[in-house]
Amino acid sequence: MVIDDDFYMSLAIQEAWNYQLLTYPNPAVGSVVVDNGQILSIQAHKEANTPHAEVLALKEAYLKKNPKSKLAQITDSFEIHKFLKENHNGYFSNCDIYVTLEPCNHIGRTPACSDLLVAIKPKRVIISVVDPNINASGGIKKLQDNSIQVDIGVCKSKGEDLLYPFFKYLEGKFIFFKLATRANGSIDGGYITSKESLEYVHKIRTKIDLLAIGGNTVRCDRPTLDCRFVDKSKSPNIMIYSRNNNFDKNIPLFNVKNRKVYISNKFDFNENFIMVEGGYNLLNLLYDKIDMLLLFISPNMKSLNNDEIRDMKYEILHSQRVGSDQLIFLQKKL
Amino acid sequence: MVIDDDFYMSLAIQEAWNYQLLTYPNPAVGSVVVDNGQILSIQAHKEANTPHAEVLALKEAYLKKNPKSKLAQITDSFEIHKFLKENHNGYFSNCDIYVTLEPCNHIGRTPACSDLLVAIKPKRVIISVVDPNINASGGIKKLQDNSIQVDIGVCKSKGEDLLYPFFKYLEGKFIFFKLATRANGSIDGGYITSKESLEYVHKIRTKIDLLAIGGNTVRCDRPTLDCRFVDKSKSPNIMIYSRNNNFDKNIPLFNVKNRKVYISNKFDFNENFIMVEGGYNLLNLLYDKIDMLLLFISPNMKSLNNDEIRDMKYEILHSQRVGSDQLIFLQKKL
Repeated sequence: MVIDDDFYMSLAIQEAWNYQLLTYPNPAVGSVVVDNGQILSIQAHKEANTPHAEVLALKEAYLKKNPKSKLAQITDSFEIHKFLKENHNGYFSNCDIYVTLEPCNHIGRTPACSDLLVAIKPKRVIISVVDPNINASGGIKKLQDNSIQVDIGVCKSKGEDLLYPFFKYLEGKFIFFKLATRANGSIDGGYITSKESLEYVHKIRTKIDLLAIGGNTVRCDRPTLDCRFVDKSKSPNIMIYSRNNNFDKNIPLFNVKNRKVYISNKFDFNENFIMVEGGYNLLNLLYDKIDMLLLFISPNMKSLNNDEIRDMKYEILHSQRVGSDQLIFLQKKL
Repeated sequence: MVIDDDFYMSLAIQEAWNYQLLTYPNPAVGSVVVDNGQILSIQAHKEANTPHAEVLALKEAYLKKNPKSKLAQITDSFEIHKFLKENHNGYFSNCDIYVTLEPCNHIGRTPACSDLLVAIKPKRVIISVVDPNINASGGIKKLQDNSIQVDIGVCKSKGEDLLYPFFKYLEGKFIFFKLATRANGSIDGGYITSKESLEYVHKIRTKIDLLAIGGNTVRCDRPTLDCRFVDKSKSPNIMIYSRNNNFDKNIPLFNVKNRKVYISNKFDFNENFIMVEGGYNLLNLLYDKIDMLLLFISPNMKSLNNDEIRDMKYEILHSQRVGSDQLIFLQKKL
């Protein structure tokens, strides 16, 4: 394997995917700081209103050689910027800073990353994708105007894949579908996926503008659709997609605090960031209207309808891409 | 993310998985060379009778700062060892060498890696799993006897997962099952996976001792089961698992050169490294006898039996582990 810009950028992209959808309305962004070939830090933006990826990466990189610095206790974006601007002392002068998206150039809920980069004067800034957001862009120009070498377009295609949800909600609307299946594709018969997957879905529910769900699921599963695994105080608003208005109001989802529920036979929204949860029937119906499918695959197999498949339990040893497919190595669970 | 021994060892493990099953009868092994924090190389053993992972990693690391060295042209294991022993000139004295398996200590088809490591005197050797193979082990002791610091057990669990096939065939027998499905679990209706997946399966077919297949598949699919996508001259021997001896001998698999075909109603083998190819019926029947499942998942959906699923085409944006599940982010194919 070649250890080059693509390699370091891939690490940044991979780290950012761990927080995909959780950074809304911000993009998922990753950053890596490399000092003369040594990786000092790999970080990602985790949530709106918290420090950007490159700020976390610079902080971690600084602490790598100054572990007792009071910077370790600082979490506020403005304070981290201030500390690094005042105390960098040439620390980053040999560093390459990899960022999956052009550093922001405006002061909003966090200060402009381009200003921080200009202040600490790294050797080079490497960027995967240029920011299409007119409000935040201009970062590259500012860096170049301040004589910092900027290389653009590294791992561009993978960088754009990472930003796909962001691009869509920037355009006005992003609709994604969550489907949980077993390794044989079966979806019936109780909880399918692991606790960690449920928690991730509940985290996403705290971020979305709306949760859409089919009327049949509501009638059959009688769900709650809250975020209890991560935050009991938050619950997404619900749109029940159904021709029939008639629902038993004792179904738990109707009785969650601080939530609006509406019923509609039109799959049409004013909201911008919408998760749909459902099975094959609903996915099939909505295929054309869905931007992204979030497919959770449990390593087990089970079938309620088809006698050819008994309960089979596996553990994932490893998974990797092969061409356009995903290959999963499974070990029988003992 | 913390940049520590676990991080570097994970890179070695991940690289090795790319050659899983292809290194038989050798184990899949990866190696990373880090010079004072700078990653110089990431390599894996690719195939029996070719250089071991650490040898490839040391070669690539050396070439990183000596790109015009004649070492670039040397591919034979003995010759690489010889060159590095004579020319290292202290090059590796600040290096940490990560290896997923204890370096071998015997001279066989390739020279002993432990001797090479002693000769080039790295700062430290970090090992995930101790070699259980009595013929190859002793590497750690030799390194320690020569005052090289050795750290053992880094990412041990992931290192053992990587070695699972090796452990099994070292014990005498490893049987794995190849299943190709679409994202909805469907397996009927022609080719399912990509060209790259087919090529990988054909590569594996050049390595196995035996390919087992169900009688029904032979009768219905009339397969060839050769390795034509990668090497037309090689073809695995075949065991047809069937109660009925009666097959049309015009089925292509019977007419491939240099191959033995036998039919048996017992799933019982003298061979050591066996791939089974089939669908859910056969997997269900053999679940208890299969050590590992190789599951290729195409990103598309399709159902022949079930009207609720139409043809849906997706591309994988990214995939990652979440708890015990695999999460795949899919974008609708335009």
